[in-house]
This record gives sequence, C-alpha cells and structure tokens, in this order.
Amino acid sequence: MKLDDLTHRSAVWLDGTGPESGIVLSSRVRLARNLNDVPFTNRSSGEEQQKVLEQFRQATQEAGILRRGALLQIDHLSMLDRAFLQERHLISPTMMKMDLNSGLYLDEREMVSAMINEEDHLRLQVMQSGLRIQSTWEIIDRIDDQFSDHVRFAFSEQYGYLTACPTNVGTGMRASVLIHLPALVLTKDIDQVIKGISQVGLAVRGFYGEGTDVLGNLFQVSNQATLGRTETDIVDNVQRFTNQIIDFERQARQTLFSEARHQIEDKIWRAYGLLQNARVLSSQELMSLLSAVRLGVSMEIITSVSLATLNSLMILMQPAHLQKLFRREMDADERDVRRAELVREKMRTLALEDGSQRAT
Amino acid sequence: MKLDDLTHRSAVWLDGTGPESGIVLSSRVRLARNLNDVPFTNRSSGEEQQKVLEQFRQATQEAGILRRGALLQIDHLSMLDRAFLQERHLISPTMMKMDLNSGLYLDEREMVSAMINEEDHLRLQVMQSGLRIQSTWEIIDRIDDQFSDHVRFAFSEQYGYLTACPTNVGTGMRASVLIHLPALVLTKDIDQVIKGISQVGLAVRGFYGEGTDVLGNLFQVSNQATLGRTETDIVDNVQRFTNQIIDFERQARQTLFSEARHQIEDKIWRAYGLLQNARVLSSQELMSLLSAVRLGVSMEIITSVSLATLNSLMILMQPAHLQKLFRREMDADERDVRRAELVREKMRTLALEDGSQRAT
Repeated sequence: MKLDDLTHRSAVWLDGTGPESGIVLSSRVRLARNLNDVPFTNRSSGEEQQKVLEQFRQATQEAGILRRGALLQIDHLSMLDRAFLQERHLISPTMMKMDLNSGLYLDEREMVSAMINEEDHLRLQVMQSGLRIQSTWEIIDRIDDQFSDHVRFAFSEQYGYLTACPTNVGTGMRASVLIHLPALVLTKDIDQVIKGISQVGLAVRGFYGEGTDVLGNLFQVSNQATLGRTETDIVDNVQRFTNQIIDFERQARQTLFSEARHQIEDKIWRAYGLLQNARVLSSQELMSLLSAVRLGVSMEIITSVSLATLNSLMILMQPAHLQKLFRREMDADERDVRRAELVREKMRTLALEDGSQRAT
Repeated sequence: MKLDDLTHRSAVWLDGTGPESGIVLSSRVRLARNLNDVPFTNRSSGEEQQKVLEQFRQATQEAGILRRGALLQIDHLSMLDRAFLQERHLISPTMMKMDLNSGLYLDEREMVSAMINEEDHLRLQVMQSGLRIQSTWEIIDRIDDQFSDHVRFAFSEQYGYLTACPTNVGTGMRASVLIHLPALVLTKDIDQVIKGISQVGLAVRGFYGEGTDVLGNLFQVSNQATLGRTETDIVDNVQRFTNQIIDFERQARQTLFSEARHQIEDKIWRAYGLLQNARVLSSQELMSLLSAVRLGVSMEIITSVSLATLNSLMILMQPAHLQKLFRREMDADERDVRRAELVREKMRTLALEDGSQRAT
C-alpha cells in the first residue's frame, strides 16, 4: 500500500453509512496492550522497540490479521507523511512527534489500524461509519484474541491489562463516537450537555482526540474509565449516552427550526453557496461550512450532497493531504486557494449530477 | 400609468447600456425652475400650489411634453407609494415627507420626470444609462425650451434662473453621475479622490442624493455651483472629472488584481454564491453583494449576469417595492426572507439560462 494512493479517497469509516449517520460520523474502539517481556515504550531501548515491531509483524503474519494491510515504519516517514497519517486519524499527535522505532499497521480500507510503540506497545483501533459501537467492539475483540494467541500481553489478575499510563489500565479500552452537534452549539446547550456527560464518566474531546480543538461542531465522546468495569459495560454505557446526546441534538434542531427556521436555512444555504464559490478557503472555515451543510443534509434541506462527500472533503482538504496531492510543499495562502479550487470542483460535479434537486 | 405596473421592472436609465456602463450606472441632469408669478413653494398657499400644478399640466399637454407620461398628485398617495417613488429616484426624500399639493410627472420609461412643488415649482430631471451627460443635457434642454414657450419662469438678467435656495440660482442645473467605485473603496483611496473632487467644485453624495448614505460603493458625483458658469461648462466639467475618476477606479482595480487577485475573486464569487443561496437578505447586504458581483461582471470575471439584472435587483428589492409587489405591509424580517427568495429566483433563472458560463 502506498500512502499516495490514499490522497484521493477517504476511509471506509467515513462513508456516511450506518445507524444515525446524520449525527454520528463514526464509532471507534481502541485497545491499549503491552508485551509481557518488554519495558513500556518510554523505558525501552531502540533495540527493544525494534523487537516489539518484529513480534507484532510476525503475529500479524501468522495470525492472518491485517493480511491485506501494510506496516509502515513511522520513523522512516517524512514529517509530511506523518502529518498526513495524523489527518486521517491513523496516528496520534503524540506519535507524530516521536522518533522511536514505531510503526503503523493499516488495512486497505482503514477500518483496522494499529500503532506500535506509541505510548503503549500496541494501540489497536477499529473504526466504522455511523453508530456501531457494539459491532466495532466485536471486530476488535476478535483481533485482540488472535493477537493473544501469538504474543503474551502484560496482564495482571488484579488489574487487567497493564498500560504505560494508569488511566488505561484494566480493559485498556476506549470506545468513542465522533458526533456532530451543531444545534446544541447554536442553542448554547452544549456546555450543559458536556457537563452532564462528564458526570456519567464520559469524556469529550476535539476532532483529533485528546487535547485538540473542536472543529466543525464535531465532538469525540468516549468512556473515561477503563478499570473496574467490563468491556460490555463500557460499550453499553457509551451507546446509551450517545443515544441520549442524539436525542438532545434532535430536540435542539426541532427548537431551532420551529423558532428560527429562516435563519437556520439561511446559515445552511449560505455555507453551501460559499463552498461552491469561494476562491480562498482555510481548513478551519471549510470545517465550519461543512458543519452547516452537514446539518442541512441531515435535515434533508440539502439533498444534492451526500454525507460521504462531506466526510471526504473534511479529510482530503487538510494541509498535509493537499501537499501530498500536489506533491510539493505549499504555504497556507496557496493551500487556501487550491483547497477552494478542489472543493468547488467537487461541489460543481455534484450540482451538475443533480441540478434539479439543487434548485429546490 | 399605474404604479403597480412598475413593481416588476426597473427604469430605462438602469438598463446597463451606454458608455462606461461597467463603472457609471447612469447620468442625470436636473433643472430647478420657478414660475414668475407665484411665490416659492414654501411661501405659497395651497391654492397657489394647485395653480402651479395646473399650469404645468396644461403646459405639458399643449407642448406635447411627456405625452405618454402621467401626473401623479403626491399628496394623494399613501406613504408606501411615496416611498416606492423615492426608491426609484423619482421623488426626493424631502418631497416624500411634504404634504403640499405636489405632483410628479413621469414618462413611461422613467427617463424624464418632473417634481412639481418640491423645493422649487419645477424640478425637471432626465436620467440615462451609462456616461451620457452631454446627451442627457441636450434632452433636458429641449424640454426646458418647450416649457418656456408655455410658462414664464422666474429669471433675472443678472443672476439667471431664480430658485428657492441660493445654491441653485443661475443655471438651476445639476449634472450628476451615479458611479460605482468598489476598488477605490477597497484600496482606501476613495477619501483622497473625494477630497480632490471637492476641490474642483464637484460634490459627492450617497445613493439617494443629498444627505443620504453611500450604499454598495455607489457615489453620486455632481457639480456644486450653478451660478456664474454656463450649462455647457457644467456638463464639460462633470464629464471631464468623471473620466478622471473612472481612470482612478481602473487603476485601483489593476492594482488589486495584480496584488491580491485571489482575494478579490474570492470576494466576488462569494457574493455571487450568497445571492444564489441566502434565505435572509437585508437591503443593505444586498447592495453590498451586488456591488461585489458588479465588480466581477465589469471585470468579466462573472459573465452569466448582466449589469441590467444587477441594476434592477438594486431597485426592485427595496422595502417599498417588495411591499407593493406583495400588496401588503411586511416587517423587516419578512421582507428579508422574501427578498432572498426573489433574488434567488432571479439568479437561478440566470444560472439555468447559462449554466456553462456559470461553471467557469
């Protein structure tokens, strides 16, 4: 697999399908695991790290895990390629900056991926489109079992899986959804909702995970605790509260549309018009325009754009993606012009494909 | 002629034709005249005012002036109708509020009009599209002569035509152009230009004339003095300095396009996208969006909209026009929604008529 092949397409977890896909972009489960006989990454030598990489390479081959995938050695990649992987939510901001013998396993469709020698030896993640926490959990659980047949994970009878950071000890599991809450942001109820979420043991993060900003009204909601509860508990909990947040968002949308329909439709259609016409477009503005159009698509006000298109624009128009696409470094000014150009092209194609609906 | 017939069309002086019509919307000449044997309007009785109206009615019939026109008695009109006429630049803000026996003559195409019993007994105006001060002057001069054959104007050998306000004494003439100067506004050179204009005896006014705001980067440039110079001097003067302002505007456009092409194109196309998509649109925002699109049309960046369309939107989407069109009073919120709807309709029709150019 070549990274350059990915510049034109986004991952399967962003294809806009699945339950509640109008509000929930994707579901993700990740497991933190460490090998029993090697110190944690931050304490291991370069040699030991290489050994970890090798063990997981063998395990994946023997077990037939990620057979159609690839292993990328991160420290061999340019900073641009690393940024590119981070933009695709495949490596963490932390990993981007590390200069260890770290690796990324990656299946072709980017449903399953695994960071090797990040904070933990193994950070396995599975992502799917829509609200599918349960099935995402089932997939990752099978892969975890397959790994367990070939490597020995550090495990304590008392605590469960051992991890570099105590917050991950136990199940080592984080289940999360990437959820779009524009109405709760507009009605300013979002603060209340976030407060409520924290009180029931869930955490809210930004677009790229821990410590990152909220962009385009997209929130990552995940379990906080990994210890003292079962994986099933965690899945049920995140699922239950996500359903509740979806309800709140739906109510907020109803309120907005009954009290300020014209203003909301105006916001949505203006964003649509700007995507189709702007000549200069920053990443940040794009995210905000996509958010408004996503609301419109989700409310069936705009019918000529698919959620998959919006999702792919969100990923493919990021700085490192654009530079990979054009195969050269570009400053922010040039990127903003190219971004506007590509977005316009995409939106125009769509408008021509379905001019009648556009004119609704 | 019924006012309701005018709600769907704009005047001939806004048809976007004529020299320099990309920058100069229209040329206008007006003459202030008073009858010899009646006190000025502000000193005349209702009976005398009625007599003035009657004299001009007779004169127009006898002389065949404005034959295909109509006389509207302003004080018989509702405030909405008066506002409607003001929005069309046919009566002054002053006249709108007067409750005298005042009248408006109006030819079918709105090229020639005459306010009776405004500040002066007669305020005759001729408006044409583009930069045509000379021919506009020739038209109004002929009409003035025809009037002179049938009524006696107050005239002093020493001063010339006598008027209620000393600033109009002499020729009683004001020649003006409505000129679009978006680039000079963007480069902030406009202040310098206005200063220069004042120094050569010209005045700069807003969209609706004296004491009104500049809207959509449209400026009215006219002669200041009416006394001590001939009509030909005034025409030549306004023509010459208008040419100079046009040059300045062209230079500013060149500068902008060589130094910030993407930003300017962005501004133009965003405005275009908003006109096509907004669901709520105030008069003021419309003027500002039309200004940006006008710049685009004038620079041949946008080729799917005509200047005539932009001009007509500028007039027909004003508050009183909308209320006349829908035949009822509407508050600002409702007008903003209807305005957006009508503008969209107009822009969509255009886009469908010429989809290929739109996609440029």
